[in-house]
Amino acid sequence: MNFNLSEAIEVLEKTPRTLESFLLGLSEGWLHGNEGEGTWNTMQIIDHLIDGETTNWIPRLQMILEDGESKSFPPFDRFAHLQQKPEQTLVEKIKEFKRLREDNITKLKVLMDSENKLEQTGIHAAFGVVKARELISTWVVHDLTHITQIVRVMAKRYRLDVGPWEEYLGVLKK
Amino acid sequence: MNFNLSEAIEVLEKTPRTLESFLLGLSEGWLHGNEGEGTWNTMQIIDHLIDGETTNWIPRLQMILEDGESKSFPPFDRFAHLQQKPEQTLVEKIKEFKRLREDNITKLKVLMDSENKLEQTGIHAAFGVVKARELISTWVVHDLTHITQIVRVMAKRYRLDVGPWEEYLGVLKK
Repeated sequence: MNFNLSEAIEVLEKTPRTLESFLLGLSEGWLHGNEGEGTWNTMQIIDHLIDGETTNWIPRLQMILEDGESKSFPPFDRFAHLQQKPEQTLVEKIKEFKRLREDNITKLKVLMDSENKLEQTGIHAAFGVVKARELISTWVVHDLTHITQIVRVMAKRYRLDVGPWEEYLGVLKK
Repeated sequence: MNFNLSEAIEVLEKTPRTLESFLLGLSEGWLHGNEGEGTWNTMQIIDHLIDGETTNWIPRLQMILEDGESKSFPPFDRFAHLQQKPEQTLVEKIKEFKRLREDNITKLKVLMDSENKLEQTGIHAAFGVVKARELISTWVVHDLTHITQIVRVMAKRYRLDVGPWEEYLGVLKK
């Protein structure tokens, strides 16, 4: 295991700024592509990240610390965001995500004020017993998953444009 | 086809800043992992991006414009960077990449001063005839490929730490 709370926080803190550097100022054509029916575009992926901040990570961590194994987490609706705020611009979405993330990191630091709490357990409806440190690791990897998804969706816009080089470009095959 | 030079440049311009936002300030533990034997860590991936700036993209574009189909590109050694500058820090590597990329975007704009040039052709040793716009599209997708690679390598550091959530985290399976 490699987990260490301050290193996890390093990554969680960077995600909003990484999205800003990568996305702000791009033409619309880069932002509205997806990977085919039933897949998400960049705007939808950011809505999903916002959703995680409000309903998933910190609420579940609080449940682990307060309720332990006495009740299981309410399910996280991974599709809820598809009905949300279509009128928000990309700039507004990233700003909202950034604000929520900052608040949640503050809460995370307050909640996890001792190393022992990393080993506390709760109940996931599908997986059974899970640990606080597994939830926080998952939060980090979830960010990284969705950053790769955003980058991959953008790359696929040029799938035909690259001509024969497609063969060398692994990202186009995922 | 979606290719349009100014949109391609938008992405090429952002890559160094995205790498800065994503990587600068991370602990060493995040930067030295790879995906197993024969795979690259973050430092090696940035060396490879630097290599592309010096020996691949602009030199090949110049060959297309000057030599057309009369000679084929010298091969791009995709492993050359593995022997390079191990003493450089991450900050120095990103700074070098940023400087080279800025120069190359300036050159790109000078070289591609008319739309017609996008259709000019050269010879790739393995693929045969390729177009200037295919080369430039590939440059963009190559950046995106290696951004996803860096993010994926980092995610894999927590493969065991996420516990049962591994099942939901696609990035860990790639």
